[in-house]
Amino acid sequence: MTPGDAPAGGLLLRRLGIDTYQEPVVYLHRDSAICKAEGFEARARIEVWRGATHILATLNVVYDSLIGIQQLGLSEAAWRALGGIDGDVLRVAHARPLQSLSAVRAKIYGRPLGAEAAAAIVRDVAEGRYSDIELAALITACSGDRMDVAETIALTRAMVAAGQRLRWDSGTVLDKHCVGGLPGNRTTLLVVPIVAACGLTIPKTSSRAITSPAGTADTMETLAPVALDLPTMRRVVESEGGCIAWGGAVSLSPADDMLIRVERPLGLDSDGLMVASVLSKKIAAGSTHVVIDMPVGRSAKVRSAQAARALAQRFHSVGGALGIGVSVIASDGSQPVGRGIGPALEAWDVLAVLQNLPDAPADLRQRALALAASLLELGGKAGAGQGRALAAGVLDSGAAWTKLQAICAAQGGMREPPRAAHTHVLGALHRGRLTAIDNRRLAQLAKLAGAPRAPAAGLELHAPLGTLLRPGQPLLTLHAESPGELAYALAYAEAQDTIFTIQQA
Amino acid sequence: MTPGDAPAGGLLLRRLGIDTYQEPVVYLHRDSAICKAEGFEARARIEVWRGATHILATLNVVYDSLIGIQQLGLSEAAWRALGGIDGDVLRVAHARPLQSLSAVRAKIYGRPLGAEAAAAIVRDVAEGRYSDIELAALITACSGDRMDVAETIALTRAMVAAGQRLRWDSGTVLDKHCVGGLPGNRTTLLVVPIVAACGLTIPKTSSRAITSPAGTADTMETLAPVALDLPTMRRVVESEGGCIAWGGAVSLSPADDMLIRVERPLGLDSDGLMVASVLSKKIAAGSTHVVIDMPVGRSAKVRSAQAARALAQRFHSVGGALGIGVSVIASDGSQPVGRGIGPALEAWDVLAVLQNLPDAPADLRQRALALAASLLELGGKAGAGQGRALAAGVLDSGAAWTKLQAICAAQGGMREPPRAAHTHVLGALHRGRLTAIDNRRLAQLAKLAGAPRAPAAGLELHAPLGTLLRPGQPLLTLHAESPGELAYALAYAEAQDTIFTIQQA
Repeated sequence: MTPGDAPAGGLLLRRLGIDTYQEPVVYLHRDSAICKAEGFEARARIEVWRGATHILATLNVVYDSLIGIQQLGLSEAAWRALGGIDGDVLRVAHARPLQSLSAVRAKIYGRPLGAEAAAAIVRDVAEGRYSDIELAALITACSGDRMDVAETIALTRAMVAAGQRLRWDSGTVLDKHCVGGLPGNRTTLLVVPIVAACGLTIPKTSSRAITSPAGTADTMETLAPVALDLPTMRRVVESEGGCIAWGGAVSLSPADDMLIRVERPLGLDSDGLMVASVLSKKIAAGSTHVVIDMPVGRSAKVRSAQAARALAQRFHSVGGALGIGVSVIASDGSQPVGRGIGPALEAWDVLAVLQNLPDAPADLRQRALALAASLLELGGKAGAGQGRALAAGVLDSGAAWTKLQAICAAQGGMREPPRAAHTHVLGALHRGRLTAIDNRRLAQLAKLAGAPRAPAAGLELHAPLGTLLRPGQPLLTLHAESPGELAYALAYAEAQDTIFTIQQA
Repeated sequence: MTPGDAPAGGLLLRRLGIDTYQEPVVYLHRDSAICKAEGFEARARIEVWRGATHILATLNVVYDSLIGIQQLGLSEAAWRALGGIDGDVLRVAHARPLQSLSAVRAKIYGRPLGAEAAAAIVRDVAEGRYSDIELAALITACSGDRMDVAETIALTRAMVAAGQRLRWDSGTVLDKHCVGGLPGNRTTLLVVPIVAACGLTIPKTSSRAITSPAGTADTMETLAPVALDLPTMRRVVESEGGCIAWGGAVSLSPADDMLIRVERPLGLDSDGLMVASVLSKKIAAGSTHVVIDMPVGRSAKVRSAQAARALAQRFHSVGGALGIGVSVIASDGSQPVGRGIGPALEAWDVLAVLQNLPDAPADLRQRALALAASLLELGGKAGAGQGRALAAGVLDSGAAWTKLQAICAAQGGMREPPRAAHTHVLGALHRGRLTAIDNRRLAQLAKLAGAPRAPAAGLELHAPLGTLLRPGQPLLTLHAESPGELAYALAYAEAQDTIFTIQQA
């Protein structure tokens, strides 16, 4: 459909200032000529044109005087996608049927997702043509064990094709990724400067949190800008060898960012979607080799050795089919890494390790060294088994700290992570040994405190597994930017025995 | 959580007059004390209290002056659920986590839906606690072949338990249901008066259209009110033996109505959800026996004899487990029934049959007689094989027509179905024999013309299968209430060879 097809006269743009999260919504008055002529009803899918720019949006019908009958209101998401100023002339039309939805329905009804279907779906998703409920149906249909390896390959390929793809001068382009589920595991901010300080290329793009209290991009954002455009990212990598940028801003696998907007509130993760999401981003970023950090633990994202093997196998199969080298490193996922959980609190842990402070979390350092070692060996800077010593030297000498400062400066300027206005120390209720921590509930606690939206929010953990606790001994400190959030987190934390298992000695 | 838990002061209700379809939405100003204190962000799920009444709603954050910082705006769906007038004092709080979502995620990850999980999910759904994307995930997880018989039984039982359940004095309470997919198959409006005229009890509740151009409730509504409350429905049935009411208004299986609000835009149907939906409504309505009309055809909802057997088997198994007698009658689903497709146009067909007009559609009459016959035999009014003659007699004598008029009068007064302001006759493009009709595309055409929202909209079909057509001979007449809708339907109908197969003689 072209703008010429839009029936009836134009409407005057009115930015309504309503934040509907990421779903674009348009508001039309019930008595507008267009509503009457077209028979539009609430939740119709509507094509909106401003000049040659157009979006697909969901209609809300207004009965009141909020907008005039000649106006077309835009939600913030719709306005961001369409641009313009109040009074611009827009045109609307019934959306043409979304053909790729038939392929989603076929998948729901049990037919495998073929290459052509995956391409059509991902193209429409990347263009923002799917409504939230359509995205929810797609994600659900592809969750659990409902996507086999062939389907995952088709989906990954389609996701790469739907966005930009970077090329680098360097023959070897390294990358790392953690499959998540382990709060505080912020190794990227250590691995990238170590690897880059050794002269290798590691143009890292990271995601924001999906279901966790902080993504790497959220944490890095407390230190430096992460929403880099492509020229900026290229300039940073050319001068420093590495960067830590938010993937969403550079349109690598844009479909993935659309899926995340619904995966997050649904709290859904699955092997197929995860592998497609991770590898599509890495391939689009131009990486030739990627090391996958896979924490395994009862309450991590990967819960058992069996699940870890299946996921690793899928990474290898899909990576092989798409021509990217994948190494998977399984790690201990029984407890959080470092002390902080939440964007700024995790950044403080990273800074302590880089600055070799006496209270720097040793577990975070050890994990980062293992991953950096693997990358240094893959990149030919160290022989087999020699990577770890090289990485430790770069960290101890302060070269990695210097490199992170240089990267932050190149990304737009380094800043100090914020500190929360409201904190509360939570003491152990009774004596005993800390024998288990429920990572999921701990993450939920940090989210109730406001993370990741509130960057200073989250919690600091004071007692690792095995600690012999006396009553009142600090277990954790809650950090919140508002008293309401602190109160919510406190209410949740009251049931502390659902988070911490303390065995009476 | 109780109202006393709501933190901070109250907010003043403002009915904003925004129709968001059925999802309740609340609007808060970004700078309101409550948004700041609670750290609310767009799409948070919020509990809203007005006195002791409360709802769960989705938050939209307002940046502009649309609402004041002391106000809380309600969408129409939220206002319908909560009531009140502008200025009423409301309280809000973070929604407590929806526990039953874990059960939905477990189902998505492949674990079967148990009785306890089904009960918890359906209770929350019936109370309106699920957001649209959560409903979409639930429906998708239960679609296709992803629900076995045991799960369907659990879901059906839970759906009955979540709403009201009617009791009738009569020992035998009859019911009928058509699984749909066949446009124009409006037999209920004939079967109910025939059966009731014979002295049997048939308190029929019907749904509105889900993915079709008209549901029975939509069609009946062009003749009489259908949104009957329970006392009215009981009074109608006590005086007339039967009624044709909208099931949604009497809170029979209220969860079903919530599911439909998302099934409809997604265009999803599945055996398990269909059987649970149909039988939960019948059992809740107090029926002891139900006859299921199952049209089978390439473009009907049930496409093959094999699919029909599987669906019939599931109806029998679930009916048996829940103690309701089920008879399934498979019928020809190769072409629409009667002439009209759309609420009012189908009502005119029904009236022609009841009034024994010379141009009454014979196929509609024959189908209604077959179903009525089965019910008369089940109800003991006719011996085996004698039901049909009895039914035909009641129709021919005018007793059924008298009975429908009496039922309409008892439901609130009979009225004449509306007629569309805009019509257009579509002629055959070339000579040949009409050998196939795509029911799905024909239904889509009627929907583009405005059905079922616009009751007079839809189409009249002039050529049954087998007709030898000459060029220009009328195939159908489109009916629309607005010129825009007529234009959309016409544009779609231009590709008439995707709807009609005409073999050149």
